Amino acid sequence: MVFSRTSAAIAAMSACVGFYMGNRFHPKEDFNTFISLHAKSAVQQKDAIESGFQLPDTNSKQTPASASTSSSTPPVSNVGQIVKYGFPSTDNLRSYDDFILSYDRRTRTANWVLEHLTQDKVTRVKGIERSKMKFIEDTSIHEFHRSTNKDYQGSGYDRGHLAAAANHRHSEKAMNQTFLLSNTAPQVGEGFNRNAWNNLEKYVRAVARNNKNVYVCTGPLYLPRKEPDGKTYVKYEVIGQNHVAVPTHFFKVLLIENEKGQFDLQSYVMPNQPLPDIKLQHFLVPLETIERAAGLLFYQNIPKTSYRKINAAAS
Amino acid sequence: MVFSRTSAAIAAMSACVGFYMGNRFHPKEDFNTFISLHAKSAVQQKDAIESGFQLPDTNSKQTPASASTSSSTPPVSNVGQIVKYGFPSTDNLRSYDDFILSYDRRTRTANWVLEHLTQDKVTRVKGIERSKMKFIEDTSIHEFHRSTNKDYQGSGYDRGHLAAAANHRHSEKAMNQTFLLSNTAPQVGEGFNRNAWNNLEKYVRAVARNNKNVYVCTGPLYLPRKEPDGKTYVKYEVIGQNHVAVPTHFFKVLLIENEKGQFDLQSYVMPNQPLPDIKLQHFLVPLETIERAAGLLFYQNIPKTSYRKINAAAS
Repeated sequence: MVFSRTSAAIAAMSACVGFYMGNRFHPKEDFNTFISLHAKSAVQQKDAIESGFQLPDTNSKQTPASASTSSSTPPVSNVGQIVKYGFPSTDNLRSYDDFILSYDRRTRTANWVLEHLTQDKVTRVKGIERSKMKFIEDTSIHEFHRSTNKDYQGSGYDRGHLAAAANHRHSEKAMNQTFLLSNTAPQVGEGFNRNAWNNLEKYVRAVARNNKNVYVCTGPLYLPRKEPDGKTYVKYEVIGQNHVAVPTHFFKVLLIENEKGQFDLQSYVMPNQPLPDIKLQHFLVPLETIERAAGLLFYQNIPKTSYRKINAAAS
Repeated sequence: MVFSRTSAAIAAMSACVGFYMGNRFHPKEDFNTFISLHAKSAVQQKDAIESGFQLPDTNSKQTPASASTSSSTPPVSNVGQIVKYGFPSTDNLRSYDDFILSYDRRTRTANWVLEHLTQDKVTRVKGIERSKMKFIEDTSIHEFHRSTNKDYQGSGYDRGHLAAAANHRHSEKAMNQTFLLSNTAPQVGEGFNRNAWNNLEKYVRAVARNNKNVYVCTGPLYLPRKEPDGKTYVKYEVIGQNHVAVPTHFFKVLLIENEKGQFDLQSYVMPNQPLPDIKLQHFLVPLETIERAAGLLFYQNIPKTSYRKINAAAS
């Protein structure tokens, strides 16, 4: 397989607004303490408005669930911690033990999933094995808008985790919750979910092991591309009876806080297709590209001017 | 133009779940008083969470704005009245003088717009003329996610109102607010916005003149269709620098309350394309079709079993 550095550019940016277009891959403190302190109640208020649906019973727990698990180190996270630096959006929120999710009822997958990772959380605990866990429907979502295991069957796509299971090794319950189908989206298996995307997830855990706090926001993208008629279109497959959307791309935005309290930001976009074994930094894109395309705003409680590094370059 | 009754069926329903597929048109009480009473504060809470953006200054007003206009009859509406029978969703809400809107930051248009209409509101008032009004950007939305007049220029599409201007003839301010670009979506002009869709809007006003209360929810759809490869895709054009989505279809769901307090429901879907001059009832579709496709739930505070008529058929 031949690919030059140029052709390895994973996407053509729209000249106008820097949109990340859906081209195929050619191998080649001003901290807002109010939000931090009141995040939990904000989530509850919004969930209360979402009338008619039961939330997971974990919603009302401030105490880390893993207190009852075999982890020797209680995790420091809770909802307030996870959204300490802002909600990417406030649409249809769901809070679980160790991640927060915004659900898109039209695409039957999340808009984004936000996690707070530390060394403790990504460290293996004996007895907590993902091999024992099964994907389950999220019954907090109305049946009209919920994806099911049957939707994925025979589709050719994996049930790809957004909050990775292995990011929540400290708690059986937290890891189990990552198997809710609201936390999955259809992903190409070979070459993507089991390879390039998995490499990115492993990298995130490595970063979590070597820093004080890592915030990870993950979600799908449905990116436009120009067609021969000169017009620009968004096009994506839908699978199963419930028409679960197959994202054209996925993003992952890392906010990394080191022991000195300095912040780095890294934002990745990968096309949902088999990818060659190349370095992860090829998938770095400007944050604004993701913010515009996904309709989100990341870590708004940190002024963009205060980052030490953005996408590995000193700011 | 030849068309049979059969070919005039505007859409093929997916056999599995009754999804309204995006085929081209071939011519042919349990009332929740809590929500009612607290609707205004719920909107305010949610808007407060949506950090960083100014809401229109109308947001905090309970008093109908038209008190200061030339209307002789004060309108009975306010936010609580508009959402009396439920929010279709609670994503990114905006409340204006006489309609409520849920904004989709990814498509740069609304998820839905909800209005409460009465005879007074749709009656002409001297001096309130839509011809004097201009489309303006909705500055309550972040510039990354906002549509502009420039996006529409040269696109070939109209800036189609979702809450129709002429539904708010009682108040210059309320009518002006319908010209916010958050209340518009790209619509085919000739044959659709200026014809079939306009006919539907006129019909809604006729219904409002002859009933006690009419609740109208309007929004875009992005419907899937099967392609020759046997797979099902959602495909829609995007226009302008901000990639404003061109919906494949639009829906309008009417909840009609007559003088006796009886309810009728009518739910329409029209493809966003030139349409022949045929009767509006050809565009009636089951409500569930729209609810599944749009990711919404309509008028949830009214049990579906309590309607007198649904889509003109006695229930």
